[in-house]
Parts: sequence; C-alpha cells; structure tokens
Amino acid sequence: MGKLKKISSVSFVGSGNVATHLAHGLSNIGIEIVEVYSVNPENANRFASRLNCSVAKDPDNLKEVDLIIIAVPDSKIEEVAVKFHGARSMVVHTSGITSMNSLGGNISYGVFYPLQTFSLQKDVDLKDVPFCIEANNKDNFNLLFELASRLSTNVKRLDSENRKILHLTAVMVNNFSNHLYHLAFDILKENNLDFDFLIPLIQETALKVKDIHPADAQTGPARRQDISSMKEHLRMLDSFPEFREVYKLLSEQIKKKYHE
Amino acid sequence: MGKLKKISSVSFVGSGNVATHLAHGLSNIGIEIVEVYSVNPENANRFASRLNCSVAKDPDNLKEVDLIIIAVPDSKIEEVAVKFHGARSMVVHTSGITSMNSLGGNISYGVFYPLQTFSLQKDVDLKDVPFCIEANNKDNFNLLFELASRLSTNVKRLDSENRKILHLTAVMVNNFSNHLYHLAFDILKENNLDFDFLIPLIQETALKVKDIHPADAQTGPARRQDISSMKEHLRMLDSFPEFREVYKLLSEQIKKKYHE
Repeated sequence: MGKLKKISSVSFVGSGNVATHLAHGLSNIGIEIVEVYSVNPENANRFASRLNCSVAKDPDNLKEVDLIIIAVPDSKIEEVAVKFHGARSMVVHTSGITSMNSLGGNISYGVFYPLQTFSLQKDVDLKDVPFCIEANNKDNFNLLFELASRLSTNVKRLDSENRKILHLTAVMVNNFSNHLYHLAFDILKENNLDFDFLIPLIQETALKVKDIHPADAQTGPARRQDISSMKEHLRMLDSFPEFREVYKLLSEQIKKKYHE
Repeated sequence: MGKLKKISSVSFVGSGNVATHLAHGLSNIGIEIVEVYSVNPENANRFASRLNCSVAKDPDNLKEVDLIIIAVPDSKIEEVAVKFHGARSMVVHTSGITSMNSLGGNISYGVFYPLQTFSLQKDVDLKDVPFCIEANNKDNFNLLFELASRLSTNVKRLDSENRKILHLTAVMVNNFSNHLYHLAFDILKENNLDFDFLIPLIQETALKVKDIHPADAQTGPARRQDISSMKEHLRMLDSFPEFREVYKLLSEQIKKKYHE
C-alpha cells in the first residue's frame, strides 16, 4: 500500500452519538463519508440519511477507504476489529478505556478518541474538543494527527494507559456531575421549583475551574465546616435516600480535604 | 420612618466572599457603601480599602443607612441581627438556608440571597445571578426587589422554605461537582496528566443541561450499563479509596435510574 498523504475517505462501524458527531465534523471539513454499518439498522439508516452515505449490509465487505472508524460499545470493539484483519484501510476505535492493542491484528491501526460527551439532541463544536491520538506506527500517527488537527485545535498524543486514566476522570467530571444535576432536578421538581434557577450556578462552577484550582474554588457548608447546615440538609433529605447518601459521602470527603 | 423610594446607602456586617462580591456590585450601580464590620479586622480592612468605606469598630453603633446586609456564617446571623433590634435601617441576610424569621426582632427586614458561588480570586457578573428576595412587608419587599433588579435580570420572590430547598440543590450542583473536579485533578496530577484536558468536557457538561434534561444528557459506562468498563475503573481506583467510593455509589445510582 502506497503511503497516504492525507485521509480523505472514511467509513463508520457504529451509528450512535460518537459516530454521528464525528461523521458530521469530518463531513464538514470535506471528508467523504462512504459507508456505515450498524447492528441497529434504524440507527444506520438515520446516520446514512443525515450523512448522505451508504448503509453496509455487513461489516465484512466494507469498501476500501482511507480510514474505518469503529465507534461501538467498548465490549464489542475487538469482535468488530477482527473483521478487518487483512484489510488495507486503516482501522481506529474511539474509546477512552480500550487499549490500542485490541486492534493489534490489523495492518494499520490506531486510536482516535474525542474527550467529550455527545448526545444526538445537541450539537457540539469539535474545535475545542481534545482528541487523543495513538497509532501503530509513525506514518499512521501523522495521518491521524493531521486529520484530528483539521477538526480541533486541541490534539494530543496519548498512550493507552494514560488515555484510560483520562477517561476515568472524564466519567467523574461529566457523568457524575450530570447525575448530581439529575438529583437536583428531581428534588426541585418535587417541590415545584424550576431547575433554571441553578443554571447560572452550574455554568459558573464549570467556568471557575478554568481559572482557579478546584481546592480554591470550593465553597459551601462542608468547606466552611458548618455542621448545623449540614445536619439540616440531611434532615431535609430524609425522603430522598439516594440524594442523602451522596450528600453524606461527599460532604464528609470535602470536610476532610479542608479540615484534617 | 418615612417610606424610602429606593435604597441608596448600604453597610455590611461580614467581609467574606459574598459580602465582597455584593458590595462591588452595589458600588458599581452607584450605591454608597458606608461601613463594614467584621470579626476579622484584616478582612474588614481589605474590604474597606477595596470599597472605599469605613471600618466600624463594633456592630452596635453602625450609622443609619437604608440597608444593612448581614453576610456572615449562617450560625452567626441571629446573634448579629440582635444588635440591630430597634435600628431604623432595614436589615437583611444573604443566606440560603436561614429562615427570614431569624431577623424577626428587627423593624424592617428581609432576605437578599444571591444564588451563586463566590470566591475572592474570581470576578462574577451579577447580571445573570438569581436573587431570591423575601421581606417582612410589601414595601420592604419592593425596595429589595428593585435593588436586586438593578444588579441582576433574574430576581425572584421566594419564601424561606423554598429558598432552603434551592440552597440544598445548589450545594449538590456546585460544591459536589467541584469536589468531583478536585478528585479528578488529584488523580491526573498523580499521573502527570494535565487537568486542562478536562476543561472542554466540564464546560460542555454544564452547557448541556441548559438545553436538555439531565436524564437525556447522561452518557458513559453506567448509563450504558457497561459492566466491564465499570469493573476496570474500580480496579484502577484501588489506590484512590475516596474516589473509588464515590465511583461505586454514583455509578450504582445512575445504573438504577436507567435500568430498573
């Protein structure tokens, strides 16, 4: 296979949140999206009509393209990748937690991990999204890095071990914060109060840590070791046992960080 | 006392984060900041030199002003308020959790609660901050509401019971999210990875819930019920017991929300 100068054609295995957002981003910079395969035909059709590409009936016979992006649940990556052993197309996955070695049977392979949360209901500007890149050799690395750099100003080389750590912390700041929003939403709703009250606070909390260390950004009853407020909060949470447990654990941890 | 048309002079008891940010905001809209009293003379001096006001030696003899704002720890509000029983100045506190009745011995009183996180190191634009207002009568309510409306476009009447619920959820989305950032920071640091990797994700997480319900915004291993990723994460957290406990509890709760 001759050396590619640039990636210009891409197919996808998977048609969920990550695949859809990436495909839109790639399409917007002039990359041809050739085919999509998904175990879920409905999703594949939605993806194909949005991206104006073909739906592949099975992954074994994808056309040769510069890059096949596997964006499927982590547990399925290896069994999908096996289908491309021997294929001339470069193969990458988009997973934070999965080692690059899961693609080790392929000729050309790597990782193309966008560190962001994607939902179909919301557009995301990829320009600021950190892309973590890894590849089986320098040429492939350069191709992937160049491609990511056309999508984002924030592209980094990261090995599988470090990517896994990053992904773990991403779960913490994204999934878990969002769960806190969800709990707050439920309590406010129960009391006929509008979640919109919290939006400016949520924004400011996220903005603050751009500028100051989270330890300095901390405020509130646990930070101040205001025992009576914490007791009152726990009493209020008697009928919200889930929230109560979270409140207890996190307040204890914050108290410890500042007062031990 | 004749009825005021508008509040134009304010003194503060307390010189911490909330007092300082409020005083700056009030000063910027032309309110005269007359005096500050604080149990911490160093803070009081810093406040006074920033705000170009006098330092009161004790709170018993504050000059008469249109409004005295008590911005001290929740547990101190009542003992401070007692000093103004009989004073002609209107007295408010800025606490989320403290009932307005804690000021019940005063002639004119209310609550002036800005729902935001304030740190001295970071400016906050008050324009979007929700101000929750309550007062002992309609005239005082109108005065406080008018004042808050000059600071912010987001002013609401809220009674003590609802304000307390709102404050509890504010702790959840602010203090607890920030604690998650802190834990993530520590793990990344331990592994020589830069916290800046997470900033775009943190921002997006906060932006997302402006537009879509937190239940729809959720992504990640627990949402997908990706057991093997969760197991791997817990294994990685063996040496971070605090983080591990948080991971377990919140993942369990997310799983339940979507899969039971």
